[in-house]
Amino acid sequence: MANQIYIGVDLGGTNIKVGICDEHGTLLHTYEGPTGADEGAEAVLGRIAQYVRKIVEDSKFEWDQVAGIGAGLAGFMDIPEGFVKLSPNLGWHNVPAKKILEEKLGKTVTIDNDANVAALGEAWSGAGKGIPNLVCYTLGTGVGGGIIINGHIYQGSGGMAGELGHMSIVPDIEAINCGCGQIGCLETVSSATGIVRMANDAVERGEHTSLALLEKIAAKDVFDAAKSGDEVALRIVHRAALYLGKSMAAVSVVLNPGRYIIGGGVSKAGEVLFAPLREAYMKYTPEQAREGVDIVPATLGNDAGIVGAAGLNLRHR
Amino acid sequence: MANQIYIGVDLGGTNIKVGICDEHGTLLHTYEGPTGADEGAEAVLGRIAQYVRKIVEDSKFEWDQVAGIGAGLAGFMDIPEGFVKLSPNLGWHNVPAKKILEEKLGKTVTIDNDANVAALGEAWSGAGKGIPNLVCYTLGTGVGGGIIINGHIYQGSGGMAGELGHMSIVPDIEAINCGCGQIGCLETVSSATGIVRMANDAVERGEHTSLALLEKIAAKDVFDAAKSGDEVALRIVHRAALYLGKSMAAVSVVLNPGRYIIGGGVSKAGEVLFAPLREAYMKYTPEQAREGVDIVPATLGNDAGIVGAAGLNLRHR
Repeated sequence: MANQIYIGVDLGGTNIKVGICDEHGTLLHTYEGPTGADEGAEAVLGRIAQYVRKIVEDSKFEWDQVAGIGAGLAGFMDIPEGFVKLSPNLGWHNVPAKKILEEKLGKTVTIDNDANVAALGEAWSGAGKGIPNLVCYTLGTGVGGGIIINGHIYQGSGGMAGELGHMSIVPDIEAINCGCGQIGCLETVSSATGIVRMANDAVERGEHTSLALLEKIAAKDVFDAAKSGDEVALRIVHRAALYLGKSMAAVSVVLNPGRYIIGGGVSKAGEVLFAPLREAYMKYTPEQAREGVDIVPATLGNDAGIVGAAGLNLRHR
Repeated sequence: MANQIYIGVDLGGTNIKVGICDEHGTLLHTYEGPTGADEGAEAVLGRIAQYVRKIVEDSKFEWDQVAGIGAGLAGFMDIPEGFVKLSPNLGWHNVPAKKILEEKLGKTVTIDNDANVAALGEAWSGAGKGIPNLVCYTLGTGVGGGIIINGHIYQGSGGMAGELGHMSIVPDIEAINCGCGQIGCLETVSSATGIVRMANDAVERGEHTSLALLEKIAAKDVFDAAKSGDEVALRIVHRAALYLGKSMAAVSVVLNPGRYIIGGGVSKAGEVLFAPLREAYMKYTPEQAREGVDIVPATLGNDAGIVGAAGLNLRHR
């Protein structure tokens, strides 16, 4: 019999990306089309089905070889039921996505949130290949997280496992409120948003920094300024790294994963972020819990979502 | 065929406790004898084998009904190999305990550390019965932890999962060094030792507290004083509860367990500890991660170690 293939769907607010993976998680084909989120959930799900059929038709594979279809999206959901409770960027509210897609495609469909899916992608064929237990941080607008245990996504009792951006890690004395309603969440300091917020605060306070010359500050500007030796920018980057490292220290005594993978736009900063991050992690983690454990950048980039989604049916618990 | 039975061994520095459990984790018989740790590892392991044979002989069960033997002890070990690297209270260094016991008993023997074993006992037939994912804290001289995922002990990549006492949770500004070499570990404030240390510090500073009248302060004295409204004692108990609650908040966004179980001597303090603990946990945990999650005292008491050890062969990953 011909080999089986696995289809992954990365459902974003603007574009839908679809990909075909082999059984090793190698991405063989990709296809991208508009989401058209303003036309509503039914239309978006119809478009996903259309793109999935098209990518298979355009490939050398037969429809019968499709072993399963997975989709990752940003939102709160009931993962076992494949039910999207709320997805602000898609404008979805209580959408039985799994059921609708299975009716349209006649194949098993599994959905999960984007941070879990990216973690699974990296675990399957990216920076975590061959490591059974790992934790993935996605540093972007927020801080996402995914927990992989024995090669599978771990959801927790209510689907909230791996919500690492909402670990309350900043001491109250220097904490600010998070959008989630809590105080001192990791993503208030270690996300792109947090880094930009700290930079804007510094400029508004009149601190001496090259960032004051910019009309609008992006996280990349802060990293660039830090690399050039700007002391204010360095302090901000070190603060983002400190709390990220402290959160990893906490994760280490809970889960003792074999590897940490850092993805998302912020992770592209390189050593200016990774060096103080490793230093903080070392300082706050017991020696035995970090033996043989490394902190590495993600390798699949924007494809992690497609690959991980494709892996959902192969490696889902 | 007759039912199978499961034997658990709780190997302490002074006494060895042995028990027989049925397949539901109900403790049917117990036997206790001296450890004789000063005679060396070989003698202690011989005594374990002798006690195990004796408890079965004295029961209505046959040796053939013994499905497996588990043992829990305090120490660092290679759990899959059953190799005790270091156990200070037994004076053991590099002892292949599993291998020796299997030779002496002709049955499968599984060993694990005492905090993991206590967590498994509570999960099997104690306060966590029926909850697949849970986290157990043991508050005693130190703070131990055990992680149960899908009904099994989760060890992590290097056996360090669940070392919750060494989560660096106290901010540097008010942290002290831990015996482990790190700074700000949970057990510096939330163990009996930590509570007594804070009380002694307060008395030495000349603070106005009824604890100053005692010749020697125990953790129970601090809880009793707090219950009587002693403000210094209340502050100490609240601090122990605050960091315990903050550590649970961190665990919640990593693992999202369905229940927290608090065991060990300190947990007997009751509401004077549990009320501020729940308050801190609520404050620092995102709402969705605490939906349906409760914090309860352990129910097996000193038997958790025997029951969990008995369960090692039934519920070990």
